[in-house]
Amino acid sequence: MFKKILIANRGEIALRVIRACKEMGIETVAVHSTADAEALHVRFADEAICIGPPSSKESYLNVPSVLSAAEITGADAIHPGYGFLSENAEFAEVTQSCGITWIGPRPEVIRLMGNKVRAREAAAAAGLPLLPGSKTALRDGQEAEAMARKIGFPVILKAAAGGGGRGMKIVRTPEAVAQAFNTASAEAVAAFGDGSMYIERYIEKPRHIEMQIVADEHGNVVHFGERECSVQRRHQKLIEEATSPALTPKLREKMGKVALGAMKKIGYNNVGTIEFLLDENGDFFFMEMNTRIQVEHPVTEQVTGIDLLKEQIRLAAGEKLGRKQEDIQLSGHAIEFRINAEDPISFAPSPGRITGFHAPGGFGVRFDSLAYEQYKVQPYYDSLIAKLICFGKDRQEAIARGRRALDELVVEGIKTNAAFHKQVLAWPDFLEGNYDTRIVEKIQTAATQRAIERMP
Amino acid sequence: MFKKILIANRGEIALRVIRACKEMGIETVAVHSTADAEALHVRFADEAICIGPPSSKESYLNVPSVLSAAEITGADAIHPGYGFLSENAEFAEVTQSCGITWIGPRPEVIRLMGNKVRAREAAAAAGLPLLPGSKTALRDGQEAEAMARKIGFPVILKAAAGGGGRGMKIVRTPEAVAQAFNTASAEAVAAFGDGSMYIERYIEKPRHIEMQIVADEHGNVVHFGERECSVQRRHQKLIEEATSPALTPKLREKMGKVALGAMKKIGYNNVGTIEFLLDENGDFFFMEMNTRIQVEHPVTEQVTGIDLLKEQIRLAAGEKLGRKQEDIQLSGHAIEFRINAEDPISFAPSPGRITGFHAPGGFGVRFDSLAYEQYKVQPYYDSLIAKLICFGKDRQEAIARGRRALDELVVEGIKTNAAFHKQVLAWPDFLEGNYDTRIVEKIQTAATQRAIERMP
Repeated sequence: MFKKILIANRGEIALRVIRACKEMGIETVAVHSTADAEALHVRFADEAICIGPPSSKESYLNVPSVLSAAEITGADAIHPGYGFLSENAEFAEVTQSCGITWIGPRPEVIRLMGNKVRAREAAAAAGLPLLPGSKTALRDGQEAEAMARKIGFPVILKAAAGGGGRGMKIVRTPEAVAQAFNTASAEAVAAFGDGSMYIERYIEKPRHIEMQIVADEHGNVVHFGERECSVQRRHQKLIEEATSPALTPKLREKMGKVALGAMKKIGYNNVGTIEFLLDENGDFFFMEMNTRIQVEHPVTEQVTGIDLLKEQIRLAAGEKLGRKQEDIQLSGHAIEFRINAEDPISFAPSPGRITGFHAPGGFGVRFDSLAYEQYKVQPYYDSLIAKLICFGKDRQEAIARGRRALDELVVEGIKTNAAFHKQVLAWPDFLEGNYDTRIVEKIQTAATQRAIERMP
Repeated sequence: MFKKILIANRGEIALRVIRACKEMGIETVAVHSTADAEALHVRFADEAICIGPPSSKESYLNVPSVLSAAEITGADAIHPGYGFLSENAEFAEVTQSCGITWIGPRPEVIRLMGNKVRAREAAAAAGLPLLPGSKTALRDGQEAEAMARKIGFPVILKAAAGGGGRGMKIVRTPEAVAQAFNTASAEAVAAFGDGSMYIERYIEKPRHIEMQIVADEHGNVVHFGERECSVQRRHQKLIEEATSPALTPKLREKMGKVALGAMKKIGYNNVGTIEFLLDENGDFFFMEMNTRIQVEHPVTEQVTGIDLLKEQIRLAAGEKLGRKQEDIQLSGHAIEFRINAEDPISFAPSPGRITGFHAPGGFGVRFDSLAYEQYKVQPYYDSLIAKLICFGKDRQEAIARGRRALDELVVEGIKTNAAFHKQVLAWPDFLEGNYDTRIVEKIQTAATQRAIERMP
């Protein structure tokens, strides 16, 4: 096992890694920018090295500085966390070439999954379903109809030069395709001077579902179930759940089987996440793979009872998985609320000093926070200051815990999005588990509507 | 279900009840002394009523004030917490006679279990084993030997008038009883002027093990497994575990069966705890029954996944248990550390204002705290300011979490016993799960020894 791990990250994930290391008896080295000198990850680590000025580019993304810190302190492994250098294949390679273990998958896999086109090809070759669609522009309405019949309905016609909804048409029956093609293409010519059209399967209510993969270096792979991440704004996740209210045990098994098959073909090692789009019929389509630990990993830890960070470290040290798929039992329900230092309505960042702080507690509440009273939220980095994870014997209990824990949270001096989370927990579709990636937009529209109605 | 519950208590247990009520959609009324106006239970409840001056006798123990508060606010149930009025049968009765539901067992059972002599008789009649011993003073060495043979070895001879170890003798073989009787009796005459002797089974390494009972008003009873509470100082528990490292599944089943049989005979309802002394041979003996929720209930919640406060409220409302014994699955391991505002060496109370505070967090950490930055620990009440509950997939992980969580805890301005807990987590017998109720004394003796050795 490693003697000393350097954490090439900051914030809550740096703390998370330090906590796992402490429990495993592994020493830790924190790196930090000058802006983060007072940060908890610096205080909780055994050693801390300042690696540069506030700008990420000159500190947390500065490969020579991070590597020097590892060499100076004699770290035998580097944990990259998420973001920053975590999906930088070159950094993984140069780490390894310095004789330091990279806590993550092989650099080749990072590189493969980091290239969108190559990742889709590799995923398809490994048996992961892609969203069906035309690969080149369509010639005419007739070709569009033939392709649509192949793809399955509903479909969406999209202008190649398009954007902002113009030149887009959703079509639900074969008979309507040719006419829609002509209308949309004419619109596209008018708007962009280019009538080229593509077609793909249209998902009415897309849900973002991801599978947690855990693999060793000896060919053993299991999944730890799925996470539901459909509560997102501009592709930024805000709330995540395990398990997903949309997955039946049968669908989970199917998705898991496809995922494991693909991971074996690709030769994946360490932890990773396959992101899927799920439609209303239970069909799912590969979006991308994240070759690192994710922000939302705690919900999976809560329902499996297994510490994913410890798994990650253990597997990077070459240990065998030692678990079979049937050993992974999912029980209870967990919901994570990302507490961001931002305006709950406009989502604008709200850095500054926290003048009052109270952490929620009690049964079923986990709080992973980098914030504390008098902590100064820096404007240089992302706005996540804490993760509130609530779990219960079922989804209903987890939701009730979420409500009361959000009520207990006190953050003064800056704004947070806690009020937004409370809106979600009052939204009927969320309570019924019947929502998709448009939920945040819907909630915001409703709130705006209410505000307008209240105007004199 | 109840619409509004008044919590006739303060501190962390009042908070605990409020949290359960909030999650169940039940309104809450806090009562408080003038000293507790700033307390969290006052802030978190829907309503708060001041019931008197700091002295418990005039506030939290003041039955007319508490009942008036319930009547004024229209509460339809009273939760007594632990301590204060929680085991006061008269209070339970008068509550009921006001048409307010008592969240606890029937007053007759509270009264029965509150009388030490009657409780032992009832327990024995209900099939709970008592520590074997003589009921009257022994005539002579011969009678002592006969009784000892009946009781089983080792036995302890105790002077009726005794104390401080004088007139006490542990005897391990039948042949030695008569001689020991004569010596001890003579010692007793010399020391107390009275040579009367009693005899009882001597337990070399007594462990305090208790079974959590959950019963409805319709005759259904289950147990939620045991808690190990042997880390105690002068009968004050400091650390509790679920499950106990001393119990095999077979012994747990046996203890559970005996406990359930007795509870059915007694007609117990609501939650309660049967405390046993366990010896090295796996024999266990009834000590007493607590007819209320206990401080250490969280460790049971962690290993069963069931909210005991919600059970308590639900059952008091007349709902059926709805669980069979086989539904109660114990998984993982939980350890509770009582964080007391006291000196970690002398255990002297340390009230005062908390000037700096940081709560531990992360995976496997639950923190039930009444303390916060700037909170003033009052000298009038018990010194418990927080409960740190650490859980993991096994005991080893729970211990590792405990260590790292205790390191994260910051309480400035007053003293706490956190350093004592760290000593326990470094004590080999504790780590091996091989300890008994003398562990705190042993740790303190060793610490004193080390201090003496360090003196110049």
